[in-house]
Amino acid sequence: MEQALTEARAAGARGEVPVGAVVVLGGAVVARAGNRTRELNDPTAHAEMLAIRAACAELGQERLVGADLYVTLEPCAMCAAAISFARLRRLYYGAEDPKGGGVAHGARFYAQPTCHHAPDVYSDIAGREAGEILRDFFAARRD
Amino acid sequence: MEQALTEARAAGARGEVPVGAVVVLGGAVVARAGNRTRELNDPTAHAEMLAIRAACAELGQERLVGADLYVTLEPCAMCAAAISFARLRRLYYGAEDPKGGGVAHGARFYAQPTCHHAPDVYSDIAGREAGEILRDFFAARRD
Repeated sequence: MEQALTEARAAGARGEVPVGAVVVLGGAVVARAGNRTRELNDPTAHAEMLAIRAACAELGQERLVGADLYVTLEPCAMCAAAISFARLRRLYYGAEDPKGGGVAHGARFYAQPTCHHAPDVYSDIAGREAGEILRDFFAARRD
Repeated sequence: MEQALTEARAAGARGEVPVGAVVVLGGAVVARAGNRTRELNDPTAHAEMLAIRAACAELGQERLVGADLYVTLEPCAMCAAAISFARLRRLYYGAEDPKGGGVAHGARFYAQPTCHHAPDVYSDIAGREAGEILRDFFAARRD
């Protein structure tokens, strides 16, 4: 999660909403990414999506069976579903996202009958630090 | 929708689940795509995602305000959320997807308080034909 926090801070320094994600398989980091929606002009370029796509490209496979995802913010419904499709084993996330989350809020994707693979979910992993990075970013933007 | 059906058939011919999508803005097609999850080793490479990303790249913007998406199958939760994030105006879809859909089934993303933009939704647009393409594909795979 420390590396995901580093990716989040780097995203914030680029003017992106500061969220970072890391894919780990067998104790090794396979891919890491920060949010790049603005830079790439791509509304799907959330940190989780970029990390999943990079990990799949790195491994040359469509699924990440046995791999875990660390992300600093509760995934939205788009990312929650992508995590499911990638067959990730565990999801560790930092801050809760009551306004936009899709795991513990809103769509609650993994609790739906249309979800055919749910990762084990661990929330509030370095949640306070992850939340502070986001709050500081938005406070600075308002100034 | 005719062009989306053509993209769906082309995807099926490539061995991909046959779903196609087209983005239209001001009466002109901006982007079109078929499902390429296998070819790209990318679980996020659904037709809608590829069409949205291509349209954003074509227009050089992160949002597709005023644009409409035609897709042959009810979008899943991932694609439904991406359609929302892209601020698409209207969503026209073909066949219903009770097992994996995220618009009229499961996550019902546009009905959630975590959804901050919902397109106008028009379902069952050439739904019978879109459904037949999918049924024929899976029937042929079972043989």
